[in-house]
Amino acid sequence: MAAGEDGVLGKTSEFRLKRRVQFYETDAAGIVHFSCYLRYLEEAEHGLWRAAGLSIAPRESEYAWPRVAVACDYRNSLRFEDEFEAHIRVAAMTDKSIRYSCVLSLGDVEIATLTMAIVCVAKATGRAASLPPAVRERLEVSADVVA
Amino acid sequence: MAAGEDGVLGKTSEFRLKRRVQFYETDAAGIVHFSCYLRYLEEAEHGLWRAAGLSIAPRESEYAWPRVAVACDYRNSLRFEDEFEAHIRVAAMTDKSIRYSCVLSLGDVEIATLTMAIVCVAKATGRAASLPPAVRERLEVSADVVA
Amino acid sequence: MAAGEDGVLGKTSEFRLKRRVQFYETDAAGIVHFSCYLRYLEEAEHGLWRAAGLSIAPRESEYAWPRVAVACDYRNSLRFEDEFEAHIRVAAMTDKSIRYSCVLSLGDVEIATLTMAIVCVAKATGRAASLPPAVRERLEVSADVVA
Amino acid sequence: MAAGEDGVLGKTSEFRLKRRVQFYETDAAGIVHFSCYLRYLEEAEHGLWRAAGLSIAPRESEYAWPRVAVACDYRNSLRFEDEFEAHIRVAAMTDKSIRYSCVLSLGDVEIATLTMAIVCVAKATGRAASLPPAVRERLEVSADVVA
Repeated sequence: MAAGEDGVLGKTSEFRLKRRVQFYETDAAGIVHFSCYLRYLEEAEHGLWRAAGLSIAPRESEYAWPRVAVACDYRNSLRFEDEFEAHIRVAAMTDKSIRYSCVLSLGDVEIATLTMAIVCVAKATGRAASLPPAVRERLEVSADVVA
Repeated sequence: MAAGEDGVLGKTSEFRLKRRVQFYETDAAGIVHFSCYLRYLEEAEHGLWRAAGLSIAPRESEYAWPRVAVACDYRNSLRFEDEFEAHIRVAAMTDKSIRYSCVLSLGDVEIATLTMAIVCVAKATGRAASLPPAVRERLEVSADVVA
Repeated sequence: MAAGEDGVLGKTSEFRLKRRVQFYETDAAGIVHFSCYLRYLEEAEHGLWRAAGLSIAPRESEYAWPRVAVACDYRNSLRFEDEFEAHIRVAAMTDKSIRYSCVLSLGDVEIATLTMAIVCVAKATGRAASLPPAVRERLEVSADVVA
Repeated sequence: MAAGEDGVLGKTSEFRLKRRVQFYETDAAGIVHFSCYLRYLEEAEHGLWRAAGLSIAPRESEYAWPRVAVACDYRNSLRFEDEFEAHIRVAAMTDKSIRYSCVLSLGDVEIATLTMAIVCVAKATGRAASLPPAVRERLEVSADVVA
């Protein structure tokens, strides 16, 4: 997110979450449980939205954002108190959906790569809806994403 | 829960949940994370309600049941695939609240003892409310609870 | 798993987990959090291993089974107390890895489809290892899996 | 933690964790699930240890720190993206145990108060052990705790 010359906020296309592994995220194998990577992805996503001046779930929101597809490739493990980064990018936007890519890394070590697609749903109808203008105005596809 | 001579269902005052420890409930110490004991307590509570023909959170319910106090004494640990029991009892009922006691055990070994108090809140007002008749008719204080 | 004519146990290639949604698995959208689907997948996987007479993480095991890839397509949501099924199948086995496919369903409604690949790692070396004989003897690829 | 005149680090007796509620911590009642408060408590505890230059679970540690008792009084709820504080204090130390008190607050609103007792266990024997010197030298009971 950057303020342009005319004082208008630029669009947000990526976000870097810094995060320390919590003990309750580890499992008996001594590493972070594989399901927690999706929680890190979600944390990074919501950080991205906040960086864009948005909340994905404000109270009384007209919209819900169900996940329609998630994939994760696990390359290395994380352990208690590891300080890792989750770097999320907007990979694609359609009329009614957003797709992200995300890389988890620990220093120079790549921990995992993830993708996630979400769809905008109007709560009133329960049906897919066009992305609301505020979202379209604040988020944009990252130039760094390889399709 | 038992059907009386007149075919009327008796009241429910206790419930025994049988449960196997899942891997995602363990932590890097190799045992179930201490926060999961509250989830086991909740599972047992909801099993108790179902045994009484009730659901604690039906859709469109007028009531919410926030927890107001929980305490747990941990005596032994649980490990992956342990098959334990959570034995919950209704320990007290007031006009607007319910208190439970619960014992987790693994065979003859006592794992933990818990207590929890919940209050009935009317969603419309956000204030404490009298227990609804269906709850009062179906749940009762266990005779085995030492006050 | 089936006992053959000669009394020898057959191999296991699939497992059906029956499961009720717990309240702590729901989120503020009123549905099961998307990360929990991976926990259901893991529960089904471990149930499959137990049905085959195996445990994936016995104490003092020489092997660990890190997940290397997971994908989930979400089609419908699950809510508190929904009684769903997770039907897991062994989709592929290589010298050092196993791949599963899994379908979550609620009655006739398909909730989600998942795939997961795990690899066998020898704890002593930290390197991928051939599947131990007991696993190779007890698990087999399901005939119903479309490649 | 403060450096004294002689350059020696002072002891640590309290820690304030700033934290934002994550979506996966909410439940279908729209608020943080009550079990998560214990996770917040643990996060604050581990932050306290790090502030004292310690880790509660370094790799190859000789000690484990099982929880023996936890209690929580819930006064108000937390919602998605609330930025709360967990203020933990060392409430008591004995030869083999530590007791904490912790207050969760959202601005001026008290959310919950917790207490937790942990015991030092030597992994080699599985028995309670005296607090190791490094812990005794770095942690001390808070002057602000009312017994």
